[in-house]
Amino acid sequence: MLKPSWIASANDPQCPFPLNNLPFGVFSNGGAPRCATAIGDKVLDLAALEAANLLPACGFDEPALNGFMAKGPEAWQAVRDGLTRLLADDAANQDSRAMVTAALHDAAEVQLHLPFQVSEYTDFYAGKQHATNVGTMFRGPENALPPNWLHIPIGYNGRASTVVVSGTDIRRPLGQTKAPDAALPSFGPCQRLDIELEMGAVVGLPSPMGQPVSVDEADAMIFGYVLLNDWSARDIQAWEYQPLGPFQAKAFATTISPWVVTKAALEPFRCATPEREKPLLPHLQDTSPMLYDIELGVSMTAKGGAPSVICQTNYRHMYYSAAQQLAHHSSSGCAMRTGDLLGSGTISGPEKHQFGSLLELTWGGKEPLTLDDGQTRRFIEDGDTLALHGHAQGEGYRVGFGSCKGSILPALEVEA
Amino acid sequence: MLKPSWIASANDPQCPFPLNNLPFGVFSNGGAPRCATAIGDKVLDLAALEAANLLPACGFDEPALNGFMAKGPEAWQAVRDGLTRLLADDAANQDSRAMVTAALHDAAEVQLHLPFQVSEYTDFYAGKQHATNVGTMFRGPENALPPNWLHIPIGYNGRASTVVVSGTDIRRPLGQTKAPDAALPSFGPCQRLDIELEMGAVVGLPSPMGQPVSVDEADAMIFGYVLLNDWSARDIQAWEYQPLGPFQAKAFATTISPWVVTKAALEPFRCATPEREKPLLPHLQDTSPMLYDIELGVSMTAKGGAPSVICQTNYRHMYYSAAQQLAHHSSSGCAMRTGDLLGSGTISGPEKHQFGSLLELTWGGKEPLTLDDGQTRRFIEDGDTLALHGHAQGEGYRVGFGSCKGSILPALEVEA
Repeated sequence: MLKPSWIASANDPQCPFPLNNLPFGVFSNGGAPRCATAIGDKVLDLAALEAANLLPACGFDEPALNGFMAKGPEAWQAVRDGLTRLLADDAANQDSRAMVTAALHDAAEVQLHLPFQVSEYTDFYAGKQHATNVGTMFRGPENALPPNWLHIPIGYNGRASTVVVSGTDIRRPLGQTKAPDAALPSFGPCQRLDIELEMGAVVGLPSPMGQPVSVDEADAMIFGYVLLNDWSARDIQAWEYQPLGPFQAKAFATTISPWVVTKAALEPFRCATPEREKPLLPHLQDTSPMLYDIELGVSMTAKGGAPSVICQTNYRHMYYSAAQQLAHHSSSGCAMRTGDLLGSGTISGPEKHQFGSLLELTWGGKEPLTLDDGQTRRFIEDGDTLALHGHAQGEGYRVGFGSCKGSILPALEVEA
Repeated sequence: MLKPSWIASANDPQCPFPLNNLPFGVFSNGGAPRCATAIGDKVLDLAALEAANLLPACGFDEPALNGFMAKGPEAWQAVRDGLTRLLADDAANQDSRAMVTAALHDAAEVQLHLPFQVSEYTDFYAGKQHATNVGTMFRGPENALPPNWLHIPIGYNGRASTVVVSGTDIRRPLGQTKAPDAALPSFGPCQRLDIELEMGAVVGLPSPMGQPVSVDEADAMIFGYVLLNDWSARDIQAWEYQPLGPFQAKAFATTISPWVVTKAALEPFRCATPEREKPLLPHLQDTSPMLYDIELGVSMTAKGGAPSVICQTNYRHMYYSAAQQLAHHSSSGCAMRTGDLLGSGTISGPEKHQFGSLLELTWGGKEPLTLDDGQTRRFIEDGDTLALHGHAQGEGYRVGFGSCKGSILPALEVEA
């Protein structure tokens, strides 16, 4: 049920930021970036509330959520409770409303920044439909899923230095590629630029080196979730990824939503992972629902055109939850840190319109998409804009993440 | 030629830390960790020299070299010049010797820490003998080198959170493995624990997102080099690494030497990469010698035994230099940051005693090593100690890195 707020715009059933949500991010409006929440069509300055002693001291004047996240679940809940008291449509908060109002900014007027300093970024491959699609294209339907796929959430370490916030333009990458019929590789702009629709789990609490964590412990360590676009250069990937995995094909950019939606806000939308096709070993078994029912989509705007929705899917299609991924990530004793970001892997549903990458939607470029404005696309062209969107649908309210979008700039020229 | 110092122990031709070296690290002696150099059998507190205005202000009171490294090549050279003036066997520095002496500590009395905060860790696979050995074992001699190997320095992103300084005990990792004849995988302690003898290049100057750097620019960005042991769990690796590369098999620990030896100290030892078997594309071609002649070795001490040298090799055997690796790393537009660590890949020479991992030295465990004390080893057992050592040999002096060692603790017990 919607929790009503005295900020009227938050009570619109279509608003992604009702009082039920209270996501965390970082904003600025001319001055230094600082922490914020979103409520209705406003951004609320948490540093101002902290300075006015309306919230517990959590380092909200920092330009990143890391300090707050490191404080752990009790602090997270105390701040959520405090904000709920301050913003509820409730006579008890009449006295503080003037101070809260002074800390509100029109969302349209502020700049949103990367919400946290990404310690390390790991990307998984935990959607069965995606792995099956890609495996079928590359290895044929009989060998689509690798032998380990049903036993561990396969992942690889990505690059944290190029995780950017929604709205950041993305430069088309250069790279080495080799056409199947070419004798030698060549170096130049990526010709098969793609997206991957993912969710990102944000680690709040660290775990020490040498200490695996259980799936339950992992779930407790997660602060919240973002939308995540794992931009991918398919032609660079094809040439480089054997034997040690994706490297430059994924290193040039990863875009996340500006708002981290907390586990508390997503609690009503928990759901179980799909039935196991093979039993998991004990260290990866979950004991309660740890996936979420989150409706996800992608819209593509070809240069000069209008947006078309090219994918509609749901986070619940994943085979492994973020908690299972985090448990696997720590299983060797790998230390996890506040600010670690875990990409879910591409979230493709069983139907074609539910596929979360152009590679799958156009089946390797063989079946071009026709957009609503009549333009066609196999992969992304310069000037195109791709946007992920997502929300959990409650009764009379929704919990959203904000946009996760980027536009493609032409590649730099290669020196002859 | 040896540069004589008034600190007599630095003038011993076997000493790894003559005035020619001046490596950088972080030490403590009861108080807060701060930056230091090594000279003879002493550690010199750079924070004290900075406070006494004997060195330019470079943030040496920080517990990591990152601030100093970010200042760039002019600051690096100014500090090196300043230290050389202060420590040379030269009457001109008589007046400052008392203050310098007050900042000296016996190396045996202090604790050495991780010398810099590792931003991200990338590991390459750039030794041709190693790639050929491993490829032969896994895929047969005809397919030993992947098709891309002679065209790009293959690398994968590793885990920065578990890079530790020499002397840190390493907990044997747990993980999922599957024996070739088993129907299902199982979870338990690694049975094939290994080392990889590598050099690590430390990035001093950053490069922006979207901007590839040339090999020359990459060489200029590198602050210095460390010894690096890329501990590896071969059985976990075999089960997990297809299709996205090593993950938990390498995530539990990477050990580096406490001292970062600067490019300036290694300048006399520059050498060319081996002749190209296939021409490199222009973006990866080097214009001058960017590899180094550094003698490297590994000693193994089986539990309760005496050390045996099990490998002697040289960094010059690498096919790609760190500058070429860094140029490749940025080729897609991947931003590089101060504190990024690039592992060279295992440095194996052409002869068997030059192989830089137990996997190669025992040929997959089939040919156990007999140590000097009569013990035999296929892989590392609990209580064993592995130490890398390395130095560049000049005329009458050597430039060393300090030790890079770790002992193995038994795995944690797995809950039934």
